[in-house]
Amino acid sequence: MTTEALKSSTAVLVELDKTNSAAIAGQYRVVRQVTESLCEPLVAEDYVVQTMTDISPTKWHLAHVSWFFETFILKPHAPGYKPLHPQYAFIFNSYYVQAGERHSRDQRGYLSRPTVEDVYSYRAYVDEHMFGLLETANEAKMLELAPLIEIGLQHEQQHQELLLTDIKHVFSVNPLCPIYHPQKAQPKAPVPALAWVPFEEGLYEIGHDTDDFFYDNEGPRHRHFLRAYELANRQVTNGEYLAFMEAGGYETPELWLSEGWVTRQEQSWTAPFYWTERDGRWDVFTLAGLLEVEPDEPVCHVSYFEADAYARWAGARLPTEQEWEIAARTVPIQGNFVENGHFHPVPAGTSGTEVGPLLQIYGNVWEWTRSPYAPYPGYEPQPGALGEYNGKFMCNQFVLRGGSCATSITHIRPTYRNFFPPDACWQFMGIRLAKDA
Amino acid sequence: MTTEALKSSTAVLVELDKTNSAAIAGQYRVVRQVTESLCEPLVAEDYVVQTMTDISPTKWHLAHVSWFFETFILKPHAPGYKPLHPQYAFIFNSYYVQAGERHSRDQRGYLSRPTVEDVYSYRAYVDEHMFGLLETANEAKMLELAPLIEIGLQHEQQHQELLLTDIKHVFSVNPLCPIYHPQKAQPKAPVPALAWVPFEEGLYEIGHDTDDFFYDNEGPRHRHFLRAYELANRQVTNGEYLAFMEAGGYETPELWLSEGWVTRQEQSWTAPFYWTERDGRWDVFTLAGLLEVEPDEPVCHVSYFEADAYARWAGARLPTEQEWEIAARTVPIQGNFVENGHFHPVPAGTSGTEVGPLLQIYGNVWEWTRSPYAPYPGYEPQPGALGEYNGKFMCNQFVLRGGSCATSITHIRPTYRNFFPPDACWQFMGIRLAKDA
Amino acid sequence: MTTEALKSSTAVLVELDKTNSAAIAGQYRVVRQVTESLCEPLVAEDYVVQTMTDISPTKWHLAHVSWFFETFILKPHAPGYKPLHPQYAFIFNSYYVQAGERHSRDQRGYLSRPTVEDVYSYRAYVDEHMFGLLETANEAKMLELAPLIEIGLQHEQQHQELLLTDIKHVFSVNPLCPIYHPQKAQPKAPVPALAWVPFEEGLYEIGHDTDDFFYDNEGPRHRHFLRAYELANRQVTNGEYLAFMEAGGYETPELWLSEGWVTRQEQSWTAPFYWTERDGRWDVFTLAGLLEVEPDEPVCHVSYFEADAYARWAGARLPTEQEWEIAARTVPIQGNFVENGHFHPVPAGTSGTEVGPLLQIYGNVWEWTRSPYAPYPGYEPQPGALGEYNGKFMCNQFVLRGGSCATSITHIRPTYRNFFPPDACWQFMGIRLAKDA
Amino acid sequence: MTTEALKSSTAVLVELDKTNSAAIAGQYRVVRQVTESLCEPLVAEDYVVQTMTDISPTKWHLAHVSWFFETFILKPHAPGYKPLHPQYAFIFNSYYVQAGERHSRDQRGYLSRPTVEDVYSYRAYVDEHMFGLLETANEAKMLELAPLIEIGLQHEQQHQELLLTDIKHVFSVNPLCPIYHPQKAQPKAPVPALAWVPFEEGLYEIGHDTDDFFYDNEGPRHRHFLRAYELANRQVTNGEYLAFMEAGGYETPELWLSEGWVTRQEQSWTAPFYWTERDGRWDVFTLAGLLEVEPDEPVCHVSYFEADAYARWAGARLPTEQEWEIAARTVPIQGNFVENGHFHPVPAGTSGTEVGPLLQIYGNVWEWTRSPYAPYPGYEPQPGALGEYNGKFMCNQFVLRGGSCATSITHIRPTYRNFFPPDACWQFMGIRLAKDA
Repeated sequence: MTTEALKSSTAVLVELDKTNSAAIAGQYRVVRQVTESLCEPLVAEDYVVQTMTDISPTKWHLAHVSWFFETFILKPHAPGYKPLHPQYAFIFNSYYVQAGERHSRDQRGYLSRPTVEDVYSYRAYVDEHMFGLLETANEAKMLELAPLIEIGLQHEQQHQELLLTDIKHVFSVNPLCPIYHPQKAQPKAPVPALAWVPFEEGLYEIGHDTDDFFYDNEGPRHRHFLRAYELANRQVTNGEYLAFMEAGGYETPELWLSEGWVTRQEQSWTAPFYWTERDGRWDVFTLAGLLEVEPDEPVCHVSYFEADAYARWAGARLPTEQEWEIAARTVPIQGNFVENGHFHPVPAGTSGTEVGPLLQIYGNVWEWTRSPYAPYPGYEPQPGALGEYNGKFMCNQFVLRGGSCATSITHIRPTYRNFFPPDACWQFMGIRLAKDA
Repeated sequence: MTTEALKSSTAVLVELDKTNSAAIAGQYRVVRQVTESLCEPLVAEDYVVQTMTDISPTKWHLAHVSWFFETFILKPHAPGYKPLHPQYAFIFNSYYVQAGERHSRDQRGYLSRPTVEDVYSYRAYVDEHMFGLLETANEAKMLELAPLIEIGLQHEQQHQELLLTDIKHVFSVNPLCPIYHPQKAQPKAPVPALAWVPFEEGLYEIGHDTDDFFYDNEGPRHRHFLRAYELANRQVTNGEYLAFMEAGGYETPELWLSEGWVTRQEQSWTAPFYWTERDGRWDVFTLAGLLEVEPDEPVCHVSYFEADAYARWAGARLPTEQEWEIAARTVPIQGNFVENGHFHPVPAGTSGTEVGPLLQIYGNVWEWTRSPYAPYPGYEPQPGALGEYNGKFMCNQFVLRGGSCATSITHIRPTYRNFFPPDACWQFMGIRLAKDA
Repeated sequence: MTTEALKSSTAVLVELDKTNSAAIAGQYRVVRQVTESLCEPLVAEDYVVQTMTDISPTKWHLAHVSWFFETFILKPHAPGYKPLHPQYAFIFNSYYVQAGERHSRDQRGYLSRPTVEDVYSYRAYVDEHMFGLLETANEAKMLELAPLIEIGLQHEQQHQELLLTDIKHVFSVNPLCPIYHPQKAQPKAPVPALAWVPFEEGLYEIGHDTDDFFYDNEGPRHRHFLRAYELANRQVTNGEYLAFMEAGGYETPELWLSEGWVTRQEQSWTAPFYWTERDGRWDVFTLAGLLEVEPDEPVCHVSYFEADAYARWAGARLPTEQEWEIAARTVPIQGNFVENGHFHPVPAGTSGTEVGPLLQIYGNVWEWTRSPYAPYPGYEPQPGALGEYNGKFMCNQFVLRGGSCATSITHIRPTYRNFFPPDACWQFMGIRLAKDA
Repeated sequence: MTTEALKSSTAVLVELDKTNSAAIAGQYRVVRQVTESLCEPLVAEDYVVQTMTDISPTKWHLAHVSWFFETFILKPHAPGYKPLHPQYAFIFNSYYVQAGERHSRDQRGYLSRPTVEDVYSYRAYVDEHMFGLLETANEAKMLELAPLIEIGLQHEQQHQELLLTDIKHVFSVNPLCPIYHPQKAQPKAPVPALAWVPFEEGLYEIGHDTDDFFYDNEGPRHRHFLRAYELANRQVTNGEYLAFMEAGGYETPELWLSEGWVTRQEQSWTAPFYWTERDGRWDVFTLAGLLEVEPDEPVCHVSYFEADAYARWAGARLPTEQEWEIAARTVPIQGNFVENGHFHPVPAGTSGTEVGPLLQIYGNVWEWTRSPYAPYPGYEPQPGALGEYNGKFMCNQFVLRGGSCATSITHIRPTYRNFFPPDACWQFMGIRLAKDA
């Protein structure tokens, strides 16, 4: 894959003149190309496999994001648009009940057809009609289309990240340990000592308030009272997490939530996901294959249950999402994103871009917060099927913040709320500690 | 069962002189007797059965609450105390990992021994030693013991409620439809029309702040900002819920949380738990046997998922626990509690005790809030095994407020936080609507 | 329990004048009393519990065998007979689809009602009507009734054995290790060395051919060719089985059937059912509580998979049911049966009744044969619901022969075919080896 | 696919001079080529998918049969042979525990690598070394190698059939209904009326007795007594089976084995596998896509449970495997095999090759017998890992006889014993009736 292609996409997606159809077409082209460039290391067989219900085959991701444009833009807005195949709407709808019946999520890996080539043809077909639609759209139409295209592109960026985390899982269960990309050399630097950055008590404004794009779950902006608190200056490292393991963290139920302990027992967890012990040392499966665990890197692929247990063991706690957001507003959006081409977290202080006391706020690993994923006061989902995007998942999940090494830098915001169930660990998920002041 | 016995227990548990060992012994005696009086309608066989993992056999409840006093008071504080049986600590520990190994929760119904008689002997044995301990305790000792006894009694009261909800489940799955107690006549009155009671925006104090007993999860007291909101004046009725059902509520996925819809499909829900259709009319299983559904009664035995879907269908939402608490502070603690001897919710306006615009705030049915069960800012669990009481369950559950017809009036407080997973429905759970002002 | 009562029942059931209603009533009375005498050591709570789907609560057994008489004799033959309770037919039907709907087998332990007392009343009610019917039956009627009563009594004897094996399971999972009856002293004698008893090649007659009672699956009598073979002179002992265990039998997949190995892995088998290791020695749970494993006793509670693996390890095989039957015809029906009051297998040569070279053919433990349970050539099930008794289970089960220490001596025959799935082990099941001559 | 290639393979595999290495090499080449020719209609994605545990991805079949030659011939017999990849032995071992650890059967569809191209390279690598080995083998070596090669080729032929039945399943669950090959026109002819062909009582010889290849489970030859019986002259047709369905066969538990009825309920069976109802008519998924059910064709894809229930409904029974074998010996091996290129059963009387009163004995559909798969008297598995080929599956399976439209005509014999669990239905399985004379 060309890291250059990824980097060239960085400049885009920042400012958007909603009536400039050429600019929007350009932006559309870039995001769509990034998706395909992420598939360059794959062979046809890699696109097909689904190794657990949570993940999807690569070709499903490629088609589903196209179905999104077809369903929410082409069908309602492109006169005479005819879907390429009558069954694709059934196969590639993910969970939008208002958009019709759909194929079982846990059987996405059962479909050898449409082939990879068919799926790329489907993408091309959708692109062709999207460009055609944009070419003929007048200013009024553009004001209608632009927000839909924007959400379609944000949606595709989310699936770019999932495509990477999912192929990582597919490769990880293969005894041949396939490599997605060779490991990239990275600068070494001593990891800064753990320090605490204080924030004051106060009635804060939380949630999105600019004209840029945001998901409905980031609003409405509202007041929230915070007691004084402190955030760790960086993410928890593998070395620190190993100390927890060696101290018996995985054998001490007192450290765990009740449901976490049950899960730990049922799944026989003894280390982060993707770690394996061999001759007394720990290896970790990465997109560059099986590597030795590097103590200075942020610990990654831990569940909420593990993050919570670690924090308790460390005499701290996880931050709330509001505490995180107030802190993150003070930090420029820089860090180890997908554009860096590491596809793996890097130690604090090595990205060359970080400033200020709070390191690694953006990129590297999503940070678990202790906040259950819930609607903000006054929250209303978008009307129609797109209202299913976020709202209906506000149950039994926890909020993560900040993006990861598989996220695009153009996709993240201080108000961005990612969310996963507390036992999920196949995403690039890690830990930042907090405590009461 | 003697409703009189239940009622006579009402006066107690209110004020507590922590150094008055005789008063505390009296209070202990009353609560323990109430537990046993609730078992009067049962035969030995009824005490044994466990019909799902969530529920426990009656004799397990009777013994477990005794184990609680034995473990947390007699063993550490009664010199020379010798447990009645070496295996009881294993059998009757529920989930306190710091109190040692325990029997599998889902196999509590596998134990025919100890017999019911053995269990009553165990209760008597514990009581005898508790009274002995209290008799000899000096003032210093009493200051140490009183808080433990208090939590032990509160704990026993919780199991009194569970004992009722669990025996209801046991009876409900029996084709013979056993009756726990005959139905009690209740006054009829027209149900007040649904109305909205407004509350103002503001920075409120939430959580416990008196000297009375409270669980650690009710504190610490902290500030919380609320936007203006409105609460329904009463609980949702069976009649209103039937309208939701008739409008296709159970066949409309758009109304449901994603996980709720999956659950509804898997469990084939089409009505509240305990409802069955027969010849086109709905019956409901109650502790007085199978009765026709009464439209004016509060709907009961609905899960969070159903409550949430109903609220969405009704153009409203569920309250947050903070909204509920602020409102409840304005209402005297009165209502349809276990002492009333109904063991079933009654229509609004018929309890003869309600005043003010907000009806049924206490008693009848626990009210689902939309608040995930999470630690309050600054929350610290109690040290030791008792710290497992509440804190380790703060995950994937929702808060319920206000008590039910199976709760003791002496047990409830405006700050009391009950919690259950969103698919639970075998408790007396119902709905009060809220909306933004 | 009075072993005397059990013994006094021995003389019965042997010869039956089908028209002698008084004799048949007497026989009926004895069998019914034996059932109740087996319950003497139990308290009410013991009757209720079901610890796995395969077993049934004691009170279910007591009622089901009464339902059998009610359904197949009283309802069709006793004019004006009115069932005691309209729901009992639903609750106490086991698997006779032609006899109507029935309660779920895996929920028999969910029913606290009818109580134990109710069930005994039900038995008395059925008995009363049975005796009434017999008193008034003329000779023609008796010829019709006698075969039905006979199958009803044989059926009740089968449930007497199940009642014992099931209560053994209930007690075994209880940390209190209840004792059904105190261990009975038994004579010691050196176990005879393993020797092989030869049988000649030939075309043999297999199956039942006398006027005595037999189940439909024991016929029709038919010819079957056998090659020359040898049978072990006695059952495999605990000591021999321990040698298999110590030789790694449970860790050597080559010794096992494929499905057996899968089961052994899934269930983590490392020893016979009911065995537990403690401080390096093996204990076994018995109806007399937890005892040390006695090397000379026949190994018991092994599945077909274990029996088959053991035989392969020992360089032998299990006999076919035809080989067993031909051999057993030469042996008088004597041995360690339920009437002996051991409720546990005893070493070969100690029962004081055995003669000839083949020891332990009857009683002690059922012997697994390598014969899948299949219809004999020309087999026709009985017409009507009673035809479901045996025929519909002829799939995925193996035949066992000879009876056990929980079988009545009046119940067993050389042609008797018991059958269980190959993973079953809660019955008194053991091993006799065979090999080709 | 070239039916010609398939047909040209027919002449081979019949006579085998074990010392003629060139002839054996030629035979090897033909069988290997047939395997690959069966894959011609597939694209790379088709090779990857596993849609249920019982089936395997096409590329797994292609590699596993090569692993078989590598493991049992090249490694022990080709000096200096070095496996192509160290992990292939782990990935492509099916169930031979004596040949080492292996990948989980239910995760064969999780492996995108090795790619299809890799797998073909693996085949070429194994072929090259096999030819090299044969070229240098002297007569003594050939006598050692020939039986192993023979079993390897028979094994590969079995997987050719599985490859077809498995890809049929993969295509069947795909909403796009892919077509493996276009439907082939077939001659029409009236189906002969059902008639009964009688066989006499007698002591017969059963099992293999020629010098040709046979699996160990076909021997040893032994005597077996049969009562007089009759076999249906042809297989049961779709039309006849539809009459069973219309008569309520799937709603009548009395017709079913107990375990069959449980399975029918759990799996919601209402018709043969691959049948779907659409607008009141029945379609069937075939390798030529979705077709209307043809009444004259043999019913196919029925489980043992369905075959047994049908037979009972029809007032007949299934034959034993001995009855089938004695009858089949009188019939020449001709019929609708894979070489015919139908990949689907055809009506009786249309194959143009059948003679005598017994039609369709070979080919079309495997015929369920009522014989549990058990060892013949005196059976000994082959020593070593190849002894796992058949013997360890002799439990909870039933024997099928005669081959199918997916079997090679060169692969079938009158003594050939196929076996599947009674709920299996994805193979080409059908019904021939029998009855007592």
